[in-house]
Amino acid sequence: MAALTIKDIARICNVSISTVSRAINNDPTINAKTRERVMEVVREFNYIPNNSARNLKMTESNTVALIVKGINNPFFQGMFPYFQKRLEDLGYQYLLHTVGGDADEGYVAEAIAKEKRLKGIIFLGGKMNYPEKILENIRIPMVLCSVAGLSHEDNIHPRVSTVSIDDSGEAHKVVEYLIRKGHRRIAIITGQKDDLTVGRLRLRGYRKALEENGIAFDEELVGYMDDGIPEFTEANGYATMKKMLESGTEFTAAFVISDRMAMGAYKALYDAGKRIPEDCSVIGFDGIEMTRYMQPSLTTVKQPVEELVESSVQMLMKQINGSRERKHLIYDAELLERDSVKFISNS
Amino acid sequence: MAALTIKDIARICNVSISTVSRAINNDPTINAKTRERVMEVVREFNYIPNNSARNLKMTESNTVALIVKGINNPFFQGMFPYFQKRLEDLGYQYLLHTVGGDADEGYVAEAIAKEKRLKGIIFLGGKMNYPEKILENIRIPMVLCSVAGLSHEDNIHPRVSTVSIDDSGEAHKVVEYLIRKGHRRIAIITGQKDDLTVGRLRLRGYRKALEENGIAFDEELVGYMDDGIPEFTEANGYATMKKMLESGTEFTAAFVISDRMAMGAYKALYDAGKRIPEDCSVIGFDGIEMTRYMQPSLTTVKQPVEELVESSVQMLMKQINGSRERKHLIYDAELLERDSVKFISNS
Repeated sequence: MAALTIKDIARICNVSISTVSRAINNDPTINAKTRERVMEVVREFNYIPNNSARNLKMTESNTVALIVKGINNPFFQGMFPYFQKRLEDLGYQYLLHTVGGDADEGYVAEAIAKEKRLKGIIFLGGKMNYPEKILENIRIPMVLCSVAGLSHEDNIHPRVSTVSIDDSGEAHKVVEYLIRKGHRRIAIITGQKDDLTVGRLRLRGYRKALEENGIAFDEELVGYMDDGIPEFTEANGYATMKKMLESGTEFTAAFVISDRMAMGAYKALYDAGKRIPEDCSVIGFDGIEMTRYMQPSLTTVKQPVEELVESSVQMLMKQINGSRERKHLIYDAELLERDSVKFISNS
Repeated sequence: MAALTIKDIARICNVSISTVSRAINNDPTINAKTRERVMEVVREFNYIPNNSARNLKMTESNTVALIVKGINNPFFQGMFPYFQKRLEDLGYQYLLHTVGGDADEGYVAEAIAKEKRLKGIIFLGGKMNYPEKILENIRIPMVLCSVAGLSHEDNIHPRVSTVSIDDSGEAHKVVEYLIRKGHRRIAIITGQKDDLTVGRLRLRGYRKALEENGIAFDEELVGYMDDGIPEFTEANGYATMKKMLESGTEFTAAFVISDRMAMGAYKALYDAGKRIPEDCSVIGFDGIEMTRYMQPSLTTVKQPVEELVESSVQMLMKQINGSRERKHLIYDAELLERDSVKFISNS
């Protein structure tokens, strides 16, 4: 099997060579439908553009770094293929850099930005407010994707564009939903006690929903992630739920701020002889694929992964192409009602 | 907070600056324990080496490409942090490239190898036997990690080094284990019908174990992955198990060749009103973390992830440093006995 040429692609698509070239380079003059049709063929045949101009361009600089906070988080892992596909369609390759839960991604970014070929950086996860100094040092385009959502008290640097969900608002909706289902003793399994990212924001939404519904906030119902176990893992969800169950605190529902932790929480509930949802309802967060296959299927909040990726990439490309516009886009998530929440009567 | 300098690291570790430098550059003259101690501090403080010589080196060329077959496979995803850590310790960054289940990773590699800065390539997943032409075109060091294990009938190109498990042998052990537990009607959920990678090899081991134990191979007990659903996913495991259950074929145990598919198979069994392991025993493959939290905990084969990564990186570094030695390393996997297999009596 010989590699396809751009001529082959043009012939298969029944378009001109220049149209294929424009599709691959995401030229704005191309019709969107035509582009999609060409790119489908490009992907189907795994066509690798290899005309010399393009090779030169690739070798020189078309690289975007994806800096990921917490590579073990399957929610982020689920986003990699989307990033890869979108960036490759645009003729970029991507460098994946990951930083641990405790590391400061700003310093990593600073080091990476020294890479001369790098055209832009997308941060995935982490927090919004980077020290002024770091942002000043990163002179190339950057977008923060799926970082801890915005709130009015956060100071966002004017150079930063962001794409996220409203973590506090979505958590608020989850708790409202549980309250409508008759629950009043609602536990939360959230980030570490000193968390400054999604854990803090989702806890804030939880607390606000309770208070708006006349339910006093009870610190005993807050399970902070164990800081001795990797964050957002089944093991952490298991340990945290186990500790809450052993404390004797009573609750009829638990909001677990990541799906993977919810799987660990399920196991702790089963080990304690509890049935889900008969003895305890559970809601997760993220909407990763495996939640459908949990027993019972997990009710969870599905993050709009494709939109988050698409917007991040588009924003970055605009900056790479010279735009000075900065935006903060917030997408809605969706509550997937499955089988892990039971209606309870308070009569 | 100012970035730490190499002096700070030396002071914290109570060693000389040159020792820190040698640790970071993995100089063979450094004591292994000292190196580990220094690197722990380097990682803890997220220290980014920034002396100019090193920067120059980084900018020039220290990149290794990791080419992954099937990025959605959590088994591979679980390996990324290990690769990243090992490569970064050695002063390399890594480019992650993924190829879909059907794409030919050889062509991807060929395109990537044109990247002038690239020092080496590690292939993760996929198959052993690449067309001669592709291997001739890739002139930089490369290692195949965790690709479909070797067998004597495969022709391995003399330029290729490999690190893997013995897929056929490990599958053989799984089936032997089920037979010892009294099972004779043993189903397998394996790769697509035309699979040339692990699916084929694990099916071979399954068949061999049955035949050695006087159990006739029965095509009805083979569930080939659905080729319309992404490979190795829960959704595929679910659909394949559901189809087998609906076919009316009877079996007391199922060997599912990936953990994630086993989770889908669990769900199909539950939906059909079957209990695990009372009505059907299940064994998975890979040993990813979440299997411990399945209900019941999944008995599975744990792949030696850290060893696979470490050996691949070491082999690649040797080649980068000029060695012409080629090796084929095969590691043992470990059967993790948990709660999803029941002993049944054949009396």
